[in-house]
Amino acid sequence: MTAEIWDVIIVGAGLSGLSAAHLLRKRNAKLRVLILEGKDRVGGRTVTSEIPAANGVDSWDFGGQWVGSTQTHILELIEELGLEVYPQFSTGKKVHHMGGPTSKVRTYRTNIPTLSPAVLMDFTQLLWKIDRLCATVCVQDPSRTPNAVQLDSMTLQTYLEQHAWTSDLKGEVELCSRAVFGMEPSQMSFLFFLMYAAAAGGLLPLLESTPGSAQELKIKGGTQQLSECLADRVGWKNVRLGSAVTAIWQVEYNSWCVLVFPPAKIHYEPALTSQREYLTQNMPVGHMIKFIITYQTAFWREKGFSGEIMAGPSTECPFCVTFDATSPNGNAALVGFISGQQATYWTSKEAGERRNAVLSSLVKYLGPEAASFIHYEEKDWAKEDYSGGCPVNVMAPGLLTYYHPSLRRPCGRIHWAGTETATQWCGYMSGAVQSGQRAALEILAEVCHETLTEEELQALQSIQTDNAKQTASHKLLHLPTSKSVVIATLAISAAVLLARYQDALLNVKTLLTSAFSNIMQP
Amino acid sequence: MTAEIWDVIIVGAGLSGLSAAHLLRKRNAKLRVLILEGKDRVGGRTVTSEIPAANGVDSWDFGGQWVGSTQTHILELIEELGLEVYPQFSTGKKVHHMGGPTSKVRTYRTNIPTLSPAVLMDFTQLLWKIDRLCATVCVQDPSRTPNAVQLDSMTLQTYLEQHAWTSDLKGEVELCSRAVFGMEPSQMSFLFFLMYAAAAGGLLPLLESTPGSAQELKIKGGTQQLSECLADRVGWKNVRLGSAVTAIWQVEYNSWCVLVFPPAKIHYEPALTSQREYLTQNMPVGHMIKFIITYQTAFWREKGFSGEIMAGPSTECPFCVTFDATSPNGNAALVGFISGQQATYWTSKEAGERRNAVLSSLVKYLGPEAASFIHYEEKDWAKEDYSGGCPVNVMAPGLLTYYHPSLRRPCGRIHWAGTETATQWCGYMSGAVQSGQRAALEILAEVCHETLTEEELQALQSIQTDNAKQTASHKLLHLPTSKSVVIATLAISAAVLLARYQDALLNVKTLLTSAFSNIMQP
Repeated sequence: MTAEIWDVIIVGAGLSGLSAAHLLRKRNAKLRVLILEGKDRVGGRTVTSEIPAANGVDSWDFGGQWVGSTQTHILELIEELGLEVYPQFSTGKKVHHMGGPTSKVRTYRTNIPTLSPAVLMDFTQLLWKIDRLCATVCVQDPSRTPNAVQLDSMTLQTYLEQHAWTSDLKGEVELCSRAVFGMEPSQMSFLFFLMYAAAAGGLLPLLESTPGSAQELKIKGGTQQLSECLADRVGWKNVRLGSAVTAIWQVEYNSWCVLVFPPAKIHYEPALTSQREYLTQNMPVGHMIKFIITYQTAFWREKGFSGEIMAGPSTECPFCVTFDATSPNGNAALVGFISGQQATYWTSKEAGERRNAVLSSLVKYLGPEAASFIHYEEKDWAKEDYSGGCPVNVMAPGLLTYYHPSLRRPCGRIHWAGTETATQWCGYMSGAVQSGQRAALEILAEVCHETLTEEELQALQSIQTDNAKQTASHKLLHLPTSKSVVIATLAISAAVLLARYQDALLNVKTLLTSAFSNIMQP
Repeated sequence: MTAEIWDVIIVGAGLSGLSAAHLLRKRNAKLRVLILEGKDRVGGRTVTSEIPAANGVDSWDFGGQWVGSTQTHILELIEELGLEVYPQFSTGKKVHHMGGPTSKVRTYRTNIPTLSPAVLMDFTQLLWKIDRLCATVCVQDPSRTPNAVQLDSMTLQTYLEQHAWTSDLKGEVELCSRAVFGMEPSQMSFLFFLMYAAAAGGLLPLLESTPGSAQELKIKGGTQQLSECLADRVGWKNVRLGSAVTAIWQVEYNSWCVLVFPPAKIHYEPALTSQREYLTQNMPVGHMIKFIITYQTAFWREKGFSGEIMAGPSTECPFCVTFDATSPNGNAALVGFISGQQATYWTSKEAGERRNAVLSSLVKYLGPEAASFIHYEEKDWAKEDYSGGCPVNVMAPGLLTYYHPSLRRPCGRIHWAGTETATQWCGYMSGAVQSGQRAALEILAEVCHETLTEEELQALQSIQTDNAKQTASHKLLHLPTSKSVVIATLAISAAVLLARYQDALLNVKTLLTSAFSNIMQP
């Protein structure tokens, strides 16, 4: 057990934890902030590595890589840190191959794959239905969505079975689920899926590389720089790598804690509320293997291809999607993803077998030039300690209905960050930044609320009122109760919140220290 | 890190871990077996406590309590340990109250609640459909069940929405789900539900207290005695309480490990296969608060009640089900369960409020005598360290299809036990015993196979062939492949297995030591 004294201890040196640390220190440079990280690097689910390329070596992202122009939190951070973005290359033919190895390989140039009129009509009606449902979702509190219980009691797959008319369209949505979540539609709640899309501004922004969508822009030099620059600002002496937290005790002491999702293997004393513990235990993470292949030239561009391939699952082709990944320095490369059930299948194969299958699929789709690569490098995120998967932890059916109220609600002096707790672009790097900043503001409001703007205080208050409302509305689920009880609960919560803001430090009832024992050096 | 040398280290001193230890020592008294347990007691999800009763004090079970005459593994253990069983009292009127506080309270004397003819017909058709599906389930490998992918892509709730005609019946099944799993039907895979019922011999045995069903018999003196007697036999000096395992390294060393589910907060080096890690992360556990109330007399019996109450969710009545719990010594008591969404709702209330709500509901259903109790004691299993919930970890949709093959497959020298890995009465005490014995036999087959009977060796071989088949069939899911590849995989696996049995110790390829650091004293 360390005898050092810190005002705030942050568990996790990814974008979310470091954004929290940065904001805390910007507002109050006197705050003693410590960041503990199990991995031997900062960046969490972003990691940038150098690999051999046409002009020597160059760097590519093996984790989160794209940002979009509607992702305000990450774009502001990029600007603040003096980094630059550039657009995802998407000019030319896209390859589309569904229905197994023997079916026809198609190409298209629009945003929507070449589908038969029947499938296109089916796609249109399904998109319309889903977007209409998205519009009814309350991202802050999904249980307020009309028919929330029903929407949360089914999987995305069940919704597809009920509302997609053609099996071709089901195949397309399954592929999208793999590409976006690293997961099959059978593994997530339909209400969670709607909330996720709503937090991104709709379903299409999740899928496309057009302006405003999730695959629009990339960061020159890679996304891990964001975390490295943030660690520079916060001070590397305050960042402890290789320091996995295994237990947190809250005792009488003046220290705060920001815990970045997923905090699955930590022992808490006192125990978390059972709602929070259930949530921690029950959010499955996706499975993605990401690969980068470098080439002498972007031969696909010369042949009129964009580099984008969408492929249905088969024993021949491991990946579900690829994109052009040529670097700003002009080093030609492709990036691809082996995801969901395909990752489960291919992860147990020998690395060479997997690489050969990727290459022969690229030869099939882009031509024989694909075989003459410079370097193939991959990262299996399921094997990454302290992440366990990528890109995001989702919610299985029933979770939103019963446990969502505890997603952002502090447990004593533990505040929750991580892109899973974001309300804008949840699951993305932008959501990670938003959630870290929100957690930092929550703590600042308690320890030095004079550093917050009136706007920020109001925003926080509305979050906390939301939390209170969620508790109340949560209690109403299925459970008929009299209106007076609910109003009383609301009134009491509001009073407690106001009291806390007026005299934050005096009103703190649960005191905490974060004693970190058992720091493992891997 | 301990410098002691053990042949087998068992993580978890519940029924499963202790059954494994007992069998290992019975077959080979020279084996050095260590059992590590995070809790300060043996018994896992069984715990027996003394509370004030009519004749002073008496003991009741606050965890698993019932056994049934078809549960051969636990019955044999009970006999071996010289314990006695007695039947669950079920004579008299049963109370049935669904549809909210204002609806009519009904009573019945049969095994099936008094339902309207329409609901009864609906019940019959649903039971028929589910039992027919149960009969098609392959418990050893649920992915071999016809339409497995489809059945696993939906929740039990979705199946209900599609196949129950009346909302009354949906309410009944929801209640059963709470009573059996501590969970709502929206939280579990329908295929998992079918497998669970199939492992118990059908749906009705799960629900009833008739001969052969899950609530048939109780153990005189309580179920924790089973674990205590087993610890006596194994030797208490080999059982370390308050010793939570946080990390396991497998290095070159001759030690074996039996890990009892749920092993959620353990760090593994080398990492588990990602399939196994996903499984560990994704099996949500139920939420149950169990209470015992003692009385001067079993007044309900005198009034013609059996003590069995089934109640739908309301803000007035916390429990979903109660039973007579009068002890073999004649101390009158009732036992009840607050489960699933009701547990989520009531767990955040003050203990006094919860108790008062239980009591006033008992007054409503059984009469004013219910108010004059001797003692009320409850146990919230969500707050129990190293369990996290009760009675069982279930599978969310998609898990069986993608990850089930790794449920019982050893990871290096780690073998898996726990009732979740059982194939007969999975989720019950009997399943815990079966799984512990199976894990012990797996290790005995490796270290001293001469202690196994021919029958046992054959049974193990069939399990391991099943594992191999599962791998093969699992790979086939959705993924068209040529038959020759599958047969080749099977042939290779079979060869490896045979080689291992012929010369078990020489053929061990992955060696392991279980180095246990970070032992926490709570």
